[in-house]
Amino acid sequence: MADPRSVEVLKTALQRLPGVGPKSAQRMAFHLLERDREGGRQIGEAIRLALSKVNHCGRCNNFSESPLCPICSSTKRDADRLCVIETPADLEAIEQAGVYQGMYFVLMGHLSPLDDIGPEQLGIDQLVELLGKEEISEIILATNLTVEGQATADFLLDLLEPKSVNITRLARGLPMGGELEYMDPGTLNQAFSGRRSLS
Amino acid sequence: MADPRSVEVLKTALQRLPGVGPKSAQRMAFHLLERDREGGRQIGEAIRLALSKVNHCGRCNNFSESPLCPICSSTKRDADRLCVIETPADLEAIEQAGVYQGMYFVLMGHLSPLDDIGPEQLGIDQLVELLGKEEISEIILATNLTVEGQATADFLLDLLEPKSVNITRLARGLPMGGELEYMDPGTLNQAFSGRRSLS
Repeated sequence: MADPRSVEVLKTALQRLPGVGPKSAQRMAFHLLERDREGGRQIGEAIRLALSKVNHCGRCNNFSESPLCPICSSTKRDADRLCVIETPADLEAIEQAGVYQGMYFVLMGHLSPLDDIGPEQLGIDQLVELLGKEEISEIILATNLTVEGQATADFLLDLLEPKSVNITRLARGLPMGGELEYMDPGTLNQAFSGRRSLS
Repeated sequence: MADPRSVEVLKTALQRLPGVGPKSAQRMAFHLLERDREGGRQIGEAIRLALSKVNHCGRCNNFSESPLCPICSSTKRDADRLCVIETPADLEAIEQAGVYQGMYFVLMGHLSPLDDIGPEQLGIDQLVELLGKEEISEIILATNLTVEGQATADFLLDLLEPKSVNITRLARGLPMGGELEYMDPGTLNQAFSGRRSLS
Protein backbone atom coordinates (compact mmCIF):
# COMPACT_ATOMS: atom_id res chain seq x y z
CA MET A 1 0.00 0.00 0.00
CA ALA A 2 2.20 2.78 -1.32
CA ASP A 3 -0.66 5.20 -2.04
CA PRO A 4 -1.83 7.76 0.52
CA ARG A 5 -4.67 6.58 2.71
CA SER A 6 -7.36 8.72 1.08
CA VAL A 7 -6.39 7.34 -2.34
CA GLU A 8 -6.72 3.80 -0.98
CA VAL A 9 -10.14 4.69 0.45
CA LEU A 10 -11.19 6.09 -2.94
CA LYS A 11 -9.98 2.95 -4.75
CA THR A 12 -11.92 0.74 -2.34
CA ALA A 13 -15.07 2.87 -2.69
CA LEU A 14 -14.93 2.83 -6.51
CA GLN A 15 -14.94 -0.96 -6.43
CA ARG A 16 -18.54 -0.83 -5.26
CA LEU A 17 -19.44 0.17 -8.82
CA PRO A 18 -20.54 -2.84 -10.87
CA GLY A 19 -17.83 -4.22 -13.14
CA VAL A 20 -15.05 -2.31 -11.40
CA GLY A 21 -12.19 -4.37 -9.94
CA PRO A 22 -8.97 -3.28 -8.25
CA LYS A 23 -7.17 -2.40 -11.49
CA SER A 24 -10.02 -0.30 -12.95
CA ALA A 25 -10.53 1.40 -9.60
CA GLN A 26 -6.85 2.34 -9.52
CA ARG A 27 -7.05 3.72 -13.05
CA MET A 28 -10.19 5.70 -12.19
CA ALA A 29 -8.71 7.13 -8.99
CA PHE A 30 -5.55 8.13 -10.86
CA HIS A 31 -7.59 9.73 -13.63
CA LEU A 32 -9.80 11.72 -11.24
CA LEU A 33 -6.92 12.94 -9.10
CA GLU A 34 -4.41 13.65 -11.84
CA ARG A 35 -6.38 14.48 -14.97
CA ASP A 36 -9.94 15.42 -14.09
CA ARG A 37 -10.54 16.85 -10.64
CA GLU A 38 -13.49 18.81 -12.00
CA GLY A 39 -14.98 15.52 -13.23
CA GLY A 40 -14.49 14.09 -9.75
CA ARG A 41 -16.37 17.01 -8.23
CA GLN A 42 -19.17 16.53 -10.76
CA ILE A 43 -19.47 12.81 -10.02
CA GLY A 44 -19.58 13.42 -6.26
CA GLU A 45 -22.21 16.12 -6.67
CA ALA A 46 -24.30 14.07 -9.14
CA ILE A 47 -24.34 11.08 -6.78
CA ARG A 48 -25.36 13.29 -3.85
CA LEU A 49 -28.13 14.92 -5.88
CA ALA A 50 -29.50 11.70 -7.35
CA LEU A 51 -29.48 9.90 -3.98
CA SER A 52 -31.41 12.73 -2.39
CA LYS A 53 -33.89 13.32 -5.22
CA VAL A 54 -34.59 9.98 -6.84
CA ASN A 55 -37.16 7.60 -5.47
CA HIS A 56 -39.65 5.23 -7.06
CA CYS A 57 -42.83 6.10 -8.93
CA GLY A 58 -45.74 5.01 -6.73
CA ARG A 59 -47.45 3.35 -9.67
CA CYS A 60 -44.89 1.83 -12.04
CA ASN A 61 -41.95 1.50 -9.62
CA ASN A 62 -39.54 3.19 -12.05
CA PHE A 63 -37.09 5.82 -10.81
CA SER A 64 -38.85 9.13 -10.36
CA GLU A 65 -38.21 12.47 -8.74
CA SER A 66 -41.95 12.99 -8.19
CA PRO A 67 -44.46 10.62 -6.54
CA LEU A 68 -45.80 9.76 -10.01
CA CYS A 69 -43.41 9.56 -12.98
CA PRO A 70 -44.07 11.48 -16.25
CA ILE A 71 -45.27 8.36 -18.09
CA CYS A 72 -47.70 7.35 -15.35
CA SER A 73 -49.07 10.89 -15.07
CA SER A 74 -49.44 11.29 -18.85
CA THR A 75 -52.98 11.25 -20.24
CA LYS A 76 -51.79 10.38 -23.74
CA ARG A 77 -50.87 6.75 -23.07
CA ASP A 78 -53.03 3.62 -23.44
CA ALA A 79 -53.85 3.14 -19.79
CA ASP A 80 -55.24 -0.37 -20.26
CA ARG A 81 -52.03 -2.01 -21.43
CA LEU A 82 -49.21 -2.76 -19.01
CA CYS A 83 -45.73 -3.83 -20.06
CA VAL A 84 -43.70 -5.52 -17.30
CA ILE A 85 -39.95 -5.01 -17.70
CA GLU A 86 -36.83 -5.54 -15.64
CA THR A 87 -35.02 -2.19 -15.61
CA PRO A 88 -35.27 1.51 -16.53
CA ALA A 89 -32.78 0.76 -19.33
CA ASP A 90 -35.33 -1.62 -20.90
CA LEU A 91 -37.97 1.10 -20.66
CA GLU A 92 -35.64 3.54 -22.37
CA ALA A 93 -34.95 1.08 -25.21
CA ILE A 94 -38.68 0.53 -25.81
CA GLU A 95 -39.46 4.26 -25.63
CA GLN A 96 -36.66 5.06 -28.04
CA ALA A 97 -37.99 2.49 -30.50
CA GLY A 98 -41.36 4.24 -30.23
CA VAL A 99 -43.24 0.97 -30.67
CA TYR A 100 -45.42 1.01 -27.57
CA GLN A 101 -47.80 3.59 -26.16
CA GLY A 102 -49.09 1.79 -23.08
CA MET A 103 -47.99 1.93 -19.46
CA TYR A 104 -45.12 0.12 -17.73
CA PHE A 105 -44.31 -1.68 -14.57
CA VAL A 106 -40.59 -1.80 -13.76
CA LEU A 107 -39.48 -4.73 -11.59
CA MET A 108 -36.05 -3.18 -10.99
CA GLY A 109 -34.40 -6.54 -11.47
CA HIS A 110 -35.27 -10.20 -11.84
CA LEU A 111 -35.78 -13.07 -9.44
CA SER A 112 -32.36 -14.12 -8.20
CA PRO A 113 -32.44 -16.23 -5.02
CA LEU A 114 -28.64 -16.24 -4.77
CA ASP A 115 -28.65 -12.44 -4.49
CA ASP A 116 -31.61 -12.48 -2.09
CA ILE A 117 -33.89 -10.95 -4.70
CA GLY A 118 -37.34 -12.47 -4.31
CA PRO A 119 -40.85 -11.28 -5.22
CA GLU A 120 -40.85 -8.67 -2.42
CA GLN A 121 -37.70 -6.98 -3.74
CA LEU A 122 -39.27 -6.75 -7.20
CA GLY A 123 -42.35 -4.93 -5.95
CA ILE A 124 -44.64 -7.69 -7.15
CA ASP A 125 -47.11 -6.90 -4.33
CA GLN A 126 -47.32 -3.42 -5.81
CA LEU A 127 -47.96 -4.88 -9.26
CA VAL A 128 -50.79 -7.11 -7.98
CA GLU A 129 -52.30 -4.16 -6.10
CA LEU A 130 -52.14 -2.04 -9.26
CA LEU A 131 -53.98 -4.75 -11.22
CA GLY A 132 -56.71 -4.74 -8.56
CA LYS A 133 -57.16 -0.99 -8.77
CA GLU A 134 -56.91 -0.32 -12.51
CA GLU A 135 -58.68 -1.60 -15.60
CA ILE A 136 -55.90 -3.46 -17.40
CA SER A 137 -56.86 -5.49 -20.47
CA GLU A 138 -53.40 -6.78 -21.42
CA ILE A 139 -50.22 -7.51 -19.54
CA ILE A 140 -47.14 -7.84 -21.73
CA LEU A 141 -44.41 -9.84 -20.00
CA ALA A 142 -41.26 -8.27 -21.44
CA THR A 143 -38.53 -9.54 -19.15
CA ASN A 144 -35.22 -10.44 -20.76
CA LEU A 145 -34.81 -13.79 -22.48
CA THR A 146 -32.11 -14.79 -20.01
CA VAL A 147 -32.57 -17.67 -17.59
CA GLU A 148 -33.40 -15.25 -14.74
CA GLY A 149 -35.68 -13.11 -16.90
CA GLN A 150 -37.61 -16.15 -18.09
CA ALA A 151 -37.90 -17.54 -14.56
CA THR A 152 -39.32 -14.17 -13.49
CA ALA A 153 -41.82 -14.22 -16.37
CA ASP A 154 -42.86 -17.78 -15.48
CA PHE A 155 -43.39 -16.75 -11.87
CA LEU A 156 -45.51 -13.77 -12.96
CA LEU A 157 -47.53 -15.93 -15.35
CA ASP A 158 -48.39 -18.38 -12.54
CA LEU A 159 -49.34 -15.49 -10.29
CA LEU A 160 -51.39 -13.51 -12.77
CA GLU A 161 -53.07 -16.28 -14.76
CA PRO A 162 -56.01 -16.66 -12.32
CA LYS A 163 -56.89 -12.99 -12.85
CA SER A 164 -59.02 -12.54 -15.94
CA VAL A 165 -56.51 -10.54 -17.92
CA ASN A 166 -54.91 -11.18 -21.29
CA ILE A 167 -51.23 -12.05 -20.73
CA THR A 168 -48.87 -11.83 -23.71
CA ARG A 169 -45.17 -12.07 -24.25
CA LEU A 170 -42.90 -10.52 -26.88
CA ALA A 171 -42.28 -12.45 -30.10
CA ARG A 172 -39.17 -14.61 -30.29
CA GLY A 173 -37.13 -15.36 -33.37
CA LEU A 174 -34.30 -13.97 -35.46
CA PRO A 175 -33.28 -10.39 -34.61
CA MET A 176 -33.21 -7.84 -37.45
CA GLY A 177 -29.86 -7.98 -39.24
CA GLY A 178 -29.26 -11.42 -37.76
CA GLU A 179 -27.38 -14.03 -39.76
CA LEU A 180 -28.46 -17.66 -39.40
CA GLU A 181 -24.85 -18.78 -39.40
CA TYR A 182 -24.26 -17.06 -36.07
CA MET A 183 -27.56 -17.81 -34.30
CA ASP A 184 -27.65 -20.08 -31.28
CA PRO A 185 -29.78 -23.27 -31.36
CA GLY A 186 -32.37 -21.75 -28.99
CA THR A 187 -33.03 -18.81 -31.30
CA LEU A 188 -33.16 -21.04 -34.39
CA ASN A 189 -35.58 -23.31 -32.55
CA GLN A 190 -37.86 -20.32 -31.79
CA ALA A 191 -37.52 -19.09 -35.35
CA PHE A 192 -38.57 -22.41 -36.83
CA SER A 193 -41.35 -23.28 -34.40
CA GLY A 194 -42.79 -19.78 -34.72
CA ARG A 195 -42.58 -19.58 -38.54
CA ARG A 196 -45.49 -17.94 -40.33
CA SER A 197 -47.20 -18.76 -43.57
CA LEU A 198 -46.66 -16.15 -46.27
CA SER A 199 -49.46 -17.35 -48.54
CA MET B 1 -34.67 10.44 -22.07
CA ALA B 2 -37.14 8.52 -19.94
CA ASP B 3 -35.08 8.75 -16.75
CA PRO B 4 -35.51 11.56 -14.21
CA ARG B 5 -33.20 14.49 -14.75
CA SER B 6 -30.94 13.80 -11.78
CA VAL B 7 -30.42 10.22 -13.03
CA GLU B 8 -29.43 11.58 -16.45
CA VAL B 9 -27.00 13.98 -14.75
CA LEU B 10 -25.52 11.08 -12.79
CA LYS B 11 -25.14 8.96 -15.93
CA THR B 12 -23.39 11.84 -17.72
CA ALA B 13 -21.07 12.47 -14.77
CA LEU B 14 -20.10 8.79 -14.46
CA GLN B 15 -18.96 8.83 -18.09
CA ARG B 16 -16.07 11.05 -17.05
CA LEU B 17 -14.53 7.95 -15.48
CA PRO B 18 -12.03 6.29 -17.84
CA GLY B 19 -13.43 3.31 -19.71
CA VAL B 20 -17.03 4.12 -18.83
CA GLY B 21 -19.42 4.63 -21.76
CA PRO B 22 -23.18 5.29 -21.81
CA LYS B 23 -24.16 1.66 -21.16
CA SER B 24 -21.79 1.13 -18.22
CA ALA B 25 -22.80 4.50 -16.78
CA GLN B 26 -26.45 3.47 -16.94
CA ARG B 27 -25.68 0.18 -15.23
CA MET B 28 -23.65 1.96 -12.54
CA ALA B 29 -26.35 4.59 -11.89
CA PHE B 30 -28.99 1.86 -11.67
CA HIS B 31 -26.83 -0.14 -9.29
CA LEU B 32 -26.10 2.79 -6.99
CA LEU B 33 -29.72 4.00 -6.86
CA GLU B 34 -31.42 0.62 -6.62
CA ARG B 35 -28.99 -1.75 -4.96
CA ASP B 36 -26.30 0.18 -3.13
CA ARG B 37 -27.17 3.67 -1.94
CA GLU B 38 -24.71 3.26 0.90
CA GLY B 39 -22.00 2.52 -1.69
CA GLY B 40 -22.99 5.68 -3.54
CA ARG B 41 -22.59 7.72 -0.37
CA GLN B 42 -19.19 6.13 0.24
CA ILE B 43 -17.98 6.91 -3.29
CA GLY B 44 -19.15 10.52 -3.06
CA GLU B 45 -17.47 10.96 0.29
CA ALA B 46 -14.24 9.22 -0.81
CA ILE B 47 -13.97 11.45 -3.89
CA ARG B 48 -14.55 14.58 -1.79
CA LEU B 49 -11.96 13.51 0.77
CA ALA B 50 -9.32 12.49 -1.77
CA LEU B 51 -9.74 15.67 -3.83
CA SER B 52 -9.30 17.80 -0.75
CA LYS B 53 -6.41 15.84 0.82
CA VAL B 54 -4.29 14.48 -2.00
CA ASN B 55 -1.64 16.53 -3.67
CA HIS B 56 1.80 15.75 -5.04
CA CYS B 57 4.95 14.96 -3.12
CA GLY B 58 7.30 17.93 -3.54
CA ARG B 59 10.21 15.64 -4.31
CA CYS B 60 9.02 12.58 -6.27
CA ASN B 61 5.75 13.98 -7.70
CA ASN B 62 3.75 10.96 -6.51
CA PHE B 63 0.36 11.43 -4.85
CA SER B 64 0.84 12.42 -1.24
CA GLU B 65 -1.22 13.81 1.61
CA SER B 66 1.85 15.46 3.10
CA PRO B 67 4.39 17.78 1.40
CA LEU B 68 6.86 14.88 1.32
CA CYS B 69 5.60 11.30 0.76
CA PRO B 70 6.56 8.42 3.12
CA ILE B 71 9.11 7.01 0.66
CA CYS B 72 10.86 10.35 0.14
CA SER B 73 10.94 11.07 3.86
CA SER B 74 12.23 7.58 4.72
CA THR B 75 15.86 7.33 5.84
CA LYS B 76 16.04 3.62 5.03
CA ARG B 77 16.12 3.95 1.24
CA ASP B 78 19.15 4.23 -1.06
CA ALA B 79 18.98 7.96 -1.66
CA ASP B 80 21.47 7.87 -4.55
CA ARG B 81 19.36 5.77 -6.92
CA LEU B 82 16.34 7.22 -8.68
CA CYS B 83 13.81 5.15 -10.61
CA VAL B 84 11.71 7.15 -13.08
CA ILE B 85 8.25 5.63 -13.62
CA GLU B 86 4.98 6.64 -15.24
CA THR B 87 2.32 6.14 -12.58
CA PRO B 88 1.67 5.39 -8.89
CA ALA B 89 0.43 1.95 -10.04
CA ASP B 90 3.93 1.21 -11.41
CA LEU B 91 5.43 2.26 -8.09
CA GLU B 92 3.06 -0.05 -6.26
CA ALA B 93 3.99 -2.98 -8.51
CA ILE B 94 7.72 -2.43 -7.90
CA GLU B 95 7.24 -1.98 -4.15
CA GLN B 96 5.15 -5.12 -3.94
CA ALA B 97 7.85 -7.06 -5.77
CA GLY B 98 10.31 -5.79 -3.15
CA VAL B 99 13.13 -5.66 -5.69
CA TYR B 100 14.20 -2.04 -5.32
CA GLN B 101 15.18 0.03 -2.31
CA GLY B 102 16.00 3.35 -3.98
CA MET B 103 13.95 6.48 -4.53
CA TYR B 104 11.39 7.21 -7.25
CA PHE B 105 10.30 9.98 -9.53
CA VAL B 106 6.73 9.61 -10.79
CA LEU B 107 5.99 11.32 -14.12
CA MET B 108 2.22 10.85 -13.68
CA GLY B 109 1.88 9.85 -17.32
CA HIS B 110 3.91 9.72 -20.51
CA LEU B 111 4.57 12.13 -23.35
CA SER B 112 1.42 12.26 -25.45
CA PRO B 113 1.23 15.29 -27.76
CA LEU B 114 -2.29 14.36 -28.89
CA ASP B 115 -3.54 14.68 -25.31
CA ASP B 116 -1.53 17.87 -24.73
CA ILE B 117 0.82 16.10 -22.36
CA GLY B 118 4.31 17.49 -22.85
CA PRO B 119 7.42 17.72 -20.62
CA GLU B 120 5.81 20.42 -18.43
CA GLN B 121 2.80 18.22 -17.59
CA LEU B 122 5.15 15.40 -16.57
CA GLY B 123 7.04 17.56 -14.07
CA ILE B 124 10.29 17.07 -15.92
CA ASP B 125 11.49 20.51 -14.73
CA GLN B 126 11.04 19.22 -11.20
CA LEU B 127 13.06 16.09 -12.07
CA VAL B 128 15.94 18.15 -13.50
CA GLU B 129 15.87 20.42 -10.46
CA LEU B 130 16.01 17.40 -8.17
CA LEU B 131 19.06 16.07 -10.01
CA GLY B 132 20.76 19.41 -9.51
CA LYS B 133 20.10 19.39 -5.77
CA GLU B 134 20.74 15.78 -4.81
CA GLU B 135 23.62 13.36 -5.20
CA ILE B 136 22.18 10.77 -7.59
CA SER B 137 24.56 8.13 -8.92
CA GLU B 138 22.10 6.15 -11.05
CA ILE B 139 18.88 6.98 -12.87
CA ILE B 140 16.80 3.94 -13.84
CA LEU B 141 14.44 4.73 -16.70
CA ALA B 142 11.51 2.42 -15.96
CA THR B 143 8.76 3.76 -18.21
CA ASN B 144 6.48 1.21 -19.85
CA LEU B 145 7.63 -0.60 -22.99
CA THR B 146 4.78 0.93 -24.96
CA VAL B 147 5.38 3.35 -27.83
CA GLU B 148 4.60 6.34 -25.58
CA GLY B 149 6.61 5.00 -22.66
CA GLN B 150 9.64 4.42 -24.86
CA ALA B 151 9.33 7.86 -26.47
CA THR B 152 9.27 9.34 -22.96
CA ALA B 153 12.38 7.36 -21.99
CA ASP B 154 14.16 8.48 -25.19
CA PHE B 155 13.29 12.10 -24.41
CA LEU B 156 14.62 11.74 -20.86
CA LEU B 157 17.80 10.05 -22.10
CA ASP B 158 18.53 12.97 -24.47
CA LEU B 159 17.84 15.43 -21.68
CA LEU B 160 19.85 13.70 -18.93
CA GLU B 161 22.79 12.27 -20.89
CA PRO B 162 24.86 15.50 -20.67
CA LYS B 163 24.69 15.33 -16.88
CA SER B 164 27.36 13.03 -15.51
CA VAL B 165 25.07 10.40 -14.09
CA ASN B 166 24.76 6.70 -14.83
CA ILE B 167 21.53 6.09 -16.76
CA THR B 168 20.16 2.55 -16.94
CA ARG B 169 17.03 0.91 -18.19
CA LEU B 170 15.26 -2.28 -17.10
CA ALA B 171 16.20 -5.55 -18.80
CA ARG B 172 14.09 -6.70 -21.74
CA GLY B 173 13.30 -10.25 -22.72
CA LEU B 174 10.93 -13.09 -21.98
CA PRO B 175 8.68 -12.55 -18.95
CA MET B 176 8.65 -15.26 -16.26
CA GLY B 177 6.16 -17.98 -17.18
CA GLY B 178 6.27 -16.79 -20.78
CA GLU B 179 5.90 -19.31 -23.59
CA LEU B 180 7.86 -18.68 -26.77
CA GLU B 181 4.92 -19.77 -28.89
CA TYR B 182 2.92 -16.75 -27.74
CA MET B 183 5.64 -14.09 -27.72
CA ASP B 184 5.53 -11.20 -30.16
CA PRO B 185 8.46 -10.65 -32.57
CA GLY B 186 9.67 -7.60 -30.62
CA THR B 187 10.04 -9.56 -27.40
CA LEU B 188 11.72 -12.48 -29.18
CA ASN B 189 14.09 -10.02 -30.83
CA GLN B 190 15.03 -8.57 -27.43
CA ALA B 191 15.35 -12.06 -25.97
CA PHE B 192 17.78 -13.17 -28.70
CA SER B 193 19.86 -10.03 -28.97
CA GLY B 194 20.19 -9.85 -25.18
CA ARG B 195 21.03 -13.54 -24.67
CA ARG B 196 23.69 -14.34 -22.08
CA SER B 197 26.42 -16.89 -22.05
CA LEU B 198 25.94 -19.61 -19.44
CA SER B 199 29.48 -20.89 -19.56
